[in-house]
Amino acid sequence: MRITGSHHRSISLCENGWSVRIVDQRQLPWKVETVELTSAPMARQAIQEMWTRGAPLIGATAAYGLCMALREDPSYRSLEENYAMLLAARPTAVNLRWALTRVREAAASTHGQARIAAAYACAAAICDEDVENNRALGEHGLKLIAGLVRGTAPVNVLTHCNTGSLATVDIGTALAPIYQAHRSGIAVHVWVSETRPRNQGALTAYELASEGVPHTVIADDAAGLLLQRAKVDLCIVGADRVARNGDVCNKIGTYLKALAAHDNQIPFYVALPFSTFDSTVASGAEIVIEERAADEVIWIHGRTVSGDIMRVKLTESQAANPAFDITPARLIGGYITEKGVVTGIDTMATGVSAFGSL
Amino acid sequence: MRITGSHHRSISLCENGWSVRIVDQRQLPWKVETVELTSAPMARQAIQEMWTRGAPLIGATAAYGLCMALREDPSYRSLEENYAMLLAARPTAVNLRWALTRVREAAASTHGQARIAAAYACAAAICDEDVENNRALGEHGLKLIAGLVRGTAPVNVLTHCNTGSLATVDIGTALAPIYQAHRSGIAVHVWVSETRPRNQGALTAYELASEGVPHTVIADDAAGLLLQRAKVDLCIVGADRVARNGDVCNKIGTYLKALAAHDNQIPFYVALPFSTFDSTVASGAEIVIEERAADEVIWIHGRTVSGDIMRVKLTESQAANPAFDITPARLIGGYITEKGVVTGIDTMATGVSAFGSL
Repeated sequence: MRITGSHHRSISLCENGWSVRIVDQRQLPWKVETVELTSAPMARQAIQEMWTRGAPLIGATAAYGLCMALREDPSYRSLEENYAMLLAARPTAVNLRWALTRVREAAASTHGQARIAAAYACAAAICDEDVENNRALGEHGLKLIAGLVRGTAPVNVLTHCNTGSLATVDIGTALAPIYQAHRSGIAVHVWVSETRPRNQGALTAYELASEGVPHTVIADDAAGLLLQRAKVDLCIVGADRVARNGDVCNKIGTYLKALAAHDNQIPFYVALPFSTFDSTVASGAEIVIEERAADEVIWIHGRTVSGDIMRVKLTESQAANPAFDITPARLIGGYITEKGVVTGIDTMATGVSAFGSL
Repeated sequence: MRITGSHHRSISLCENGWSVRIVDQRQLPWKVETVELTSAPMARQAIQEMWTRGAPLIGATAAYGLCMALREDPSYRSLEENYAMLLAARPTAVNLRWALTRVREAAASTHGQARIAAAYACAAAICDEDVENNRALGEHGLKLIAGLVRGTAPVNVLTHCNTGSLATVDIGTALAPIYQAHRSGIAVHVWVSETRPRNQGALTAYELASEGVPHTVIADDAAGLLLQRAKVDLCIVGADRVARNGDVCNKIGTYLKALAAHDNQIPFYVALPFSTFDSTVASGAEIVIEERAADEVIWIHGRTVSGDIMRVKLTESQAANPAFDITPARLIGGYITEKGVVTGIDTMATGVSAFGSL
């Protein structure tokens, strides 16, 4: 992401060579601040409490967390414990398990102090690959957008949640094709869904504004009308986990947008690196959906008549706060990956082989 | 609505016999206050700025607004001007036009000072009928809920926006069957969708809490997952205008919930008095959708790390804020009216005669 003009990754190794610096996304969009993570428990806390977020970035953060655990206890004895502790930070994004497993395997492949170096090299590779994969999938997605250009009118892309540089090590997943299109001179306009209750849409608006991409923020409820009234040419969202049958687990509300896109014959694409594909899960019904704290929903913010900022807790009400939903493969037009675009529900219905064939 | 234990209507004539008192819904859920409307322009402002809201209550408020205009100028000369001024307060809810037209006709049916009395009598009748109609449609809807009872488990009803006593003169539309079921001893649990950007879900939670009805608040995005995972037995929403073909214009986000209900074979009903039916409109595509101020969307509220309440305006972003969407008749299982339940899409497809046959 861009901070004061210079380009930084959302996670980077500190000069000491072992701790990592992340953008503290709890502060956004109020202020841009970074925080240094200095231990595995702190990495877990950062993931669990959403100081950092986004499936690929969660993976990268956990990877460095496991590196720091290994550095503190090079005996390797506590590695499994720390692996499990970090894995439990959030249940839904499969990139977390994928990244931790890679670091564990890298460490297991050698001995003694070399383990620490191998683990850190693996975490660095995960980060570098994330940037490279996003660049590649952005190129593939760019072709989809380019194919929708009609005269001088902008291509209207609807997205959900935040899937840009703030959700990845850099560039983003669903936002990558949009950034590539914008940079290559294609007129593109983005409908940004605010993504209650955590307002990740504000992060997307913040990112798009800093890149100069025209965009319009909407309440989550508004996506249906925009699709009904031909204001959207293409939907692109990210993913936290994709099952063998192509079902997509992504930020709560994705399913509703996919239904509306399908009902209005607007193409609906999911952008993901292969690390988000989970071949161990047959369908979306098997995926554990994280239930987050009721407090994220139960506080009502607003202004009084006199203009004061107010918040009130609905103390006599219960709240439910599932963080993800499942979009069935039948609603998805295609999957934008670093290896190319898997199009068509029929292709996906064949399962893992469809991805494997790329 | 209930205020401090005693039961008041959401709008009532003051003791002076000419002004009206409404609940100031801008203050809710922070505090319960009423405000006195003393002129037609003030009634218009109250509707436009949502001091009061809900299709039936908008109609009742406008009706009294026109009465006050007539009282100030009994010559009848400014009536058309005031009619047009009040009609323009909000474009979507048809009850506004319906109520104003009734008062105008009542006034036109007599002469001189008697006009004022006739207009006020008409406005009072609109209010009394609203309460009676809501009671009747609540009874019809209660049978739907009763039919879904399985053992001792509560019937789970998903609703959207606020359609209770705060949206009507009293009792409500979509909430009426729920209140009736609860009072008749049927275990019912309500999923309350927060309804961004105006948070009318907080009004629903407030109402349900004060009536002791078990309920759970959710982000608007969460409805799809609840329907996917069999947490909902029935959806009931209100309406701002229903077209001849049965298309329903209601609070933005209704269409998305109807799609998800349809996709999961959960019955989706719309509760409305006949005054919300607009025989002059053939289909939903013809209905004007109100675009409200961007400010309702562009301010992000939240807490900083230190717990401070913060709000920030996304000054570099545009915002769009359509207030309603269209739910096609094909997604609607039935219409709960004061005359009975019109079930089935086939019945509705025959147009106005389906309602007329009741």
